[in-house]
Amino acid sequence: MAAKGKRRFEGVIAPLVTPFGDDGAPDPERFVDHADWLLRNGCTALAPFGTTSEANSLGLDERMEMLEELVDADVDPAKLLPGTGMCSVSDAITLTQHAVDLDCGGVLMLPPFYYKGVSEEGLYRFFSEVIDGVGDDRLKVYLYHIPPVAQVGFPIPLIRRLKDAYPETVVGLKDSSGDWATTKAILDAFPDFEVFPGSEAFLLDGLRAGSSGTISASANVNAAALRKVFDNWQTADADALQAKISGVRKALQAMPLIPAVKATIAHFRKDKAWARLRPPLVELPDGDAKKLMAELEGTHGFSMNFA
Amino acid sequence: MAAKGKRRFEGVIAPLVTPFGDDGAPDPERFVDHADWLLRNGCTALAPFGTTSEANSLGLDERMEMLEELVDADVDPAKLLPGTGMCSVSDAITLTQHAVDLDCGGVLMLPPFYYKGVSEEGLYRFFSEVIDGVGDDRLKVYLYHIPPVAQVGFPIPLIRRLKDAYPETVVGLKDSSGDWATTKAILDAFPDFEVFPGSEAFLLDGLRAGSSGTISASANVNAAALRKVFDNWQTADADALQAKISGVRKALQAMPLIPAVKATIAHFRKDKAWARLRPPLVELPDGDAKKLMAELEGTHGFSMNFA
Repeated sequence: MAAKGKRRFEGVIAPLVTPFGDDGAPDPERFVDHADWLLRNGCTALAPFGTTSEANSLGLDERMEMLEELVDADVDPAKLLPGTGMCSVSDAITLTQHAVDLDCGGVLMLPPFYYKGVSEEGLYRFFSEVIDGVGDDRLKVYLYHIPPVAQVGFPIPLIRRLKDAYPETVVGLKDSSGDWATTKAILDAFPDFEVFPGSEAFLLDGLRAGSSGTISASANVNAAALRKVFDNWQTADADALQAKISGVRKALQAMPLIPAVKATIAHFRKDKAWARLRPPLVELPDGDAKKLMAELEGTHGFSMNFA
Repeated sequence: MAAKGKRRFEGVIAPLVTPFGDDGAPDPERFVDHADWLLRNGCTALAPFGTTSEANSLGLDERMEMLEELVDADVDPAKLLPGTGMCSVSDAITLTQHAVDLDCGGVLMLPPFYYKGVSEEGLYRFFSEVIDGVGDDRLKVYLYHIPPVAQVGFPIPLIRRLKDAYPETVVGLKDSSGDWATTKAILDAFPDFEVFPGSEAFLLDGLRAGSSGTISASANVNAAALRKVFDNWQTADADALQAKISGVRKALQAMPLIPAVKATIAHFRKDKAWARLRPPLVELPDGDAKKLMAELEGTHGFSMNFA
């Protein structure tokens, strides 16, 4: 486990959702507003342009422009961990260099996800070419392991090879395998790695096993409660606090998760625009959204603090 | 089956391989040279920026620049069917508009392939937004069905909905399912569609069932022989000609297919640069490349005509 002071990122990190305006374009005003709100309401940092952010449904230019919007709005770039992994080395270098130039604290990199069944050597070369291509000591890479979506993932031998080759650059991993045994194996193999389970269902177990917190879709709506678990994980209350956030997570992920998160923000912000998604994702049907809100507010006493 | 004269594309189409120079950048000189050679040696058209072209391993800018190289070198744009499908509507519009502006005969569009298990409605909206976004009557879209790689595909109800909504625009499909029953079902459902099996293993069966030819990786090395099948499919020689090309295909795909195609070009052009691939793909090990050449030249009497 890395000494607390040595970690660049820790705590509760939201893969910041991307709002879309009437014209279908990413909406910088709502985006910055939500980023500010999250940092004042539980989040220790933000990971824009993750899976929940619909990053791969945005154009290269849109991603760079929206990241600049955050920095221009005085969001501390040290607290930003933007997604910059692409299918091509060229585009990945473009986005990664841009994030480094903005002084972002790190980048969260998907593997190239078009070809399936690719070799460890091929994936190693991909990351090696991106890191060497950027060629900047400020670059800190967090590997983004999400095999249920990307299909291509990071087996432990590949992580080891990358860490060994770039010990000052490849510093952490988000594990969205949804499988605790995988998270645990990575934590055990690399005690100095900054590891973030991709769901707060594993927040407490993760912290007890040496993880750094969580980067979770539902941090977009429930960051304050997640933060309570992070701040109190060594107290007697920890298990009860964890049970509460696990209940909310379960309700959210009973629906398609990204539409559910956006529908929840739309409901509590009283702003239907927030429910919009870009194809190929689609919004929750009205009936499902109402059912979800009844479950969140009724069963879980859940609310978002937009007072 | 579309009347022969009505078809925009038919015959033998190579998903043009992308050569890389010493610096790792796409090499326009070798690219144009191979395009010219293919059009003089069996290909009726070219589909640059397909799976075999490592399109998704190229940057957006690189793809547009290399397409311009072909047009600037006087390759007839009516014979070009570039891949322009991307994960984001924005990037797909950028590439598609660019291809239309260059007067390309059509575009071959992957579905957005990051999110898995997406709805028919989401995929419909994606293509609808791209087609409406380009908003140009010249646009002719060929759907690229390759579920083994993209994971996301085109079920028949989705194809029907797109054809019905855009009858003058959505005109064909490449079927790289590798499954003849799928190709046959699509041909039967849409007799006026221009359907191309993704492997010449199905060339003769396809032509007999009303398909338009093939768009196949191995057309990069064996187009002349494929063309013989296309030109003679109604003759007594057809089955023997098909058996010959199926044998070569089988030898190629006994190895990872894209590295095998590039190794074959490198061998017959006596130019090692051709064997290069971009990560995450890697070249064939020397031993495997030698084994493949022995099989092609020895067992199949195969050669490429670079005299």
